[in-house]
Amino acid sequence: MTRQRLYLFDTTLRDGQQTQGVQFSVAEKVQIARALDTLGVDYIEGGWPGANPTDSDFFAAPPETRATMTAFGMTRRVGRSAENDDVLAAVLNANTPAVCLVGKTHEFHVTTALGVTLDENREAIASSIRHLVAKGHEALFDAEHFFDGYRANPGYALSCLQAALEAGARWVVLCDTNGGTLPAEVGRITAEVVAAGIPGDRLGIHCHDDTGNGVANTLAAVEAGAQQVQGTLNGLGERCGNANLTTLIPTLLLKEPFASRFETGVTPEALAGLLKTSRMLDDILNRVPLRSAAYVGASAFAHKAGLHASAILKDPTTYEHIDPALVGNERVIPMSNQAGQSNLRARLEAAGLVIDPKDPRLGRIIEVVKDREDQGYAYDGAQASFELVARRELGLCPEFFEVKRYRVTVERRKNKYDRMISLSEAVVVVKIGERKMMSVSDSMDEAGGDRGPVNALAKALAKDLGPYQACIDDMKLVDFKVRITNGGTEAVTRVIIDSEDGQGRRWSTVGVSANIVDASFEALLDAIQWKLIRDIGSPVGSAP
Amino acid sequence: MTRQRLYLFDTTLRDGQQTQGVQFSVAEKVQIARALDTLGVDYIEGGWPGANPTDSDFFAAPPETRATMTAFGMTRRVGRSAENDDVLAAVLNANTPAVCLVGKTHEFHVTTALGVTLDENREAIASSIRHLVAKGHEALFDAEHFFDGYRANPGYALSCLQAALEAGARWVVLCDTNGGTLPAEVGRITAEVVAAGIPGDRLGIHCHDDTGNGVANTLAAVEAGAQQVQGTLNGLGERCGNANLTTLIPTLLLKEPFASRFETGVTPEALAGLLKTSRMLDDILNRVPLRSAAYVGASAFAHKAGLHASAILKDPTTYEHIDPALVGNERVIPMSNQAGQSNLRARLEAAGLVIDPKDPRLGRIIEVVKDREDQGYAYDGAQASFELVARRELGLCPEFFEVKRYRVTVERRKNKYDRMISLSEAVVVVKIGERKMMSVSDSMDEAGGDRGPVNALAKALAKDLGPYQACIDDMKLVDFKVRITNGGTEAVTRVIIDSEDGQGRRWSTVGVSANIVDASFEALLDAIQWKLIRDIGSPVGSAP
Repeated sequence: MTRQRLYLFDTTLRDGQQTQGVQFSVAEKVQIARALDTLGVDYIEGGWPGANPTDSDFFAAPPETRATMTAFGMTRRVGRSAENDDVLAAVLNANTPAVCLVGKTHEFHVTTALGVTLDENREAIASSIRHLVAKGHEALFDAEHFFDGYRANPGYALSCLQAALEAGARWVVLCDTNGGTLPAEVGRITAEVVAAGIPGDRLGIHCHDDTGNGVANTLAAVEAGAQQVQGTLNGLGERCGNANLTTLIPTLLLKEPFASRFETGVTPEALAGLLKTSRMLDDILNRVPLRSAAYVGASAFAHKAGLHASAILKDPTTYEHIDPALVGNERVIPMSNQAGQSNLRARLEAAGLVIDPKDPRLGRIIEVVKDREDQGYAYDGAQASFELVARRELGLCPEFFEVKRYRVTVERRKNKYDRMISLSEAVVVVKIGERKMMSVSDSMDEAGGDRGPVNALAKALAKDLGPYQACIDDMKLVDFKVRITNGGTEAVTRVIIDSEDGQGRRWSTVGVSANIVDASFEALLDAIQWKLIRDIGSPVGSAP
Repeated sequence: MTRQRLYLFDTTLRDGQQTQGVQFSVAEKVQIARALDTLGVDYIEGGWPGANPTDSDFFAAPPETRATMTAFGMTRRVGRSAENDDVLAAVLNANTPAVCLVGKTHEFHVTTALGVTLDENREAIASSIRHLVAKGHEALFDAEHFFDGYRANPGYALSCLQAALEAGARWVVLCDTNGGTLPAEVGRITAEVVAAGIPGDRLGIHCHDDTGNGVANTLAAVEAGAQQVQGTLNGLGERCGNANLTTLIPTLLLKEPFASRFETGVTPEALAGLLKTSRMLDDILNRVPLRSAAYVGASAFAHKAGLHASAILKDPTTYEHIDPALVGNERVIPMSNQAGQSNLRARLEAAGLVIDPKDPRLGRIIEVVKDREDQGYAYDGAQASFELVARRELGLCPEFFEVKRYRVTVERRKNKYDRMISLSEAVVVVKIGERKMMSVSDSMDEAGGDRGPVNALAKALAKDLGPYQACIDDMKLVDFKVRITNGGTEAVTRVIIDSEDGQGRRWSTVGVSANIVDASFEALLDAIQWKLIRDIGSPVGSAP
């Protein structure tokens, strides 16, 4: 059977920008458009020319893409001709190969919100599309509130689609604008639309996630015959977001019945870059990536249950629905108090520590980890501290240096200009061999701002570590997370620090204390210890 | 048509705990179980007794619930009797009304992972269930990898379900363990299972979100006949999480065909508490609530598009699929337009501040709030600080006292017994009228433990506030949350403090700074300021 072409239409730059708190710059729009093009989508909806300065600027100098650049707008208003509608004119002036116009197909919205007759509305759709086509654009028609409209008056909703197609629209797109329709109904109505004579290869689907079914609704419409899928990267979009293309693309490419039935413009190589594309968008938005995201989440292939982890080691297909590498992701076997010894051994092996399954120290390590987790430590997200716990039990953790004492001061007072300022200062005393070293630092950043006591402490500690100084010079603290949690009966603070070095390593360490400064200091010390072991080395293997 | 009973089975405390980075304490488990019971679920799966100390402790003194408390475990191992399986014995020892055992139904897992024959495995299922029932427990059987197993060998997978039912299981539950099955196939296989004679009122569904279809898969199974739904609050769970009950419950109660076909134990009043329950879990986990979450997300009813916002004002059904109040949520209209101002006025009225709609200070308050939110402040969870921002703009915020300066020291060193100890000490200088007061405190708790710099600072500040001392003597800091967030381009720390007083008031304040001690101090000052306004009073109303 020959495979049908399935078209991917991305609206991250248009509907995605309706997300609360999201406002792309022109440069960011260009960057995202390029990434979408590399991924292999067919259409990139860049925005609504004329609706705001950013969108107009973007279309003034759009990036060159293989994908069809598309401008968004709305059908002409009733009472003026398509030629004389200034809103529509601004859209056409963007001069994109394709234009997508939204229009009403729900009788309630036509008569109540617009206050025009059903015929007038349908004629506005048809003449707007005719105008686009006459001007040489590929035309798409977004049928707003289609599913609600079809429930209320199927004949009218269908007649709007037919009018658009007859006027020359390349695509008509069924929109579940309010996001309230469930998958079975999306499937049923889409099938009825196809049965009524709207060809699947001119039919698109545009869903939202208001019932958590944005992806499922899209799949239901594709199974019923729609051959264009609209969505956004990471499911960005108004309210709960649009159908998530980052989830839909691997499903459509890797899963049946879609994989055998369709071909898309996304190659296996591009699919392997999916995680990177998803992270790039989060980076632009300054968002913490969603750990639990399907396919691309950091936890998507994390196996915490001990039974799962041991089976995975025998055969990954036992608890993985796809090979994580296909989307650029990887397997994670975290340590936790539910994990078994096989889990533990896999993690130690990842750190280069090969231990015999019968070694009694394995049991001791699990005991120590459990005990520390009771105190509030969490090793799931702090593999480097976990490794150090194990190394200490195994006698494979050299003591490079010892911190004898530290003192940090946080002060807030008026400066000489009578303005309140704050400043921190830290003194650390470290012993290396027989040598004692005392270092001091304040908390000021390059702009003269106070970065707080942990910053001062980190800088003082990193100032002079004698023979080890060269190793830590390329270390950088890249993230710092704080949680108030329970250690035994008391609330304690848990700090997780992510560090990076010049060789591209990234590692996480944890500290716990009722005192937040002390918890941070503990995580810092672990970070340095781990780095020194990597750079200077330490006995590795099943010794001693 | 009489409605069928649909049963809700919550596994937040068991499968939810498999989430990477999640480790509930016993007290948290009790709190979540109570909230689930209030919500009206039918079963609460509390954990796996014997698998870890927390779960064992939880079952040693479980909370009293109307819902059926359920212990999780696995079917006996082949080669020993159900009576002599120590893992199974530990589960039964928890003495819960119901027990849910997971067992294999996929031939590949039976022969490869377990290395036993298909008959041996089926007999292990049957005898384990018989053993439960003989001991007086309600028995549930979780059919692991059921959908993958059914695809490979439908006869064997079905025979395992039948064996469990014949052995006395109240429920058999179809589990999509790896989360890779798509909705259409879940629906088809579930329908075939029902057609094969497994009654729907003894059939459950357990899905995961690895393709973003956890909710849709569950709905497909319910449409095909399954009458027990398993899931977790906020979709917590291993890898990408379990089917999200926070999404499923409103869909099942409010949407067709489910609303007319089924009844559940969740009342409309309980449904209106759904958002609160969801936030409570995020609070326990110290997670930022997902803004885009279906139904309960802060953005779920936020209308950013200008056209949508103006239509919503005419008729909310134009762009809302349900009334947000049904799930305890509310509509958000950007503050920049008229509807936003009426929201603001409602919030001020709640604090006793009645402002004329035409008062230009309303616009100024919106500007200040936006500006501060850009810096990292969050007023959603800090109503008291929000009120103070408004009062300052309105000239209704008396200055009771002024903090001239403070200094906190954190020290870590060896004590005279050569043990490392830490201690903090704070000095605060406060001016009240013309009087200057200097107070000092350390961070020691009653047991002599160091509670850190914020504790020392809070105690020093509360030591002597002169004429106001009586007002703050009954104040207590009851919760303290720390988040690293973004203020402008730099990472800053946001601290939210919850306070309580002897009159049963509870209020929340926020502070933001790159310096965590300073952010905490700001939130502390707001907490005291709010309390003094309540106790001593302040001009209220539309003045000046």
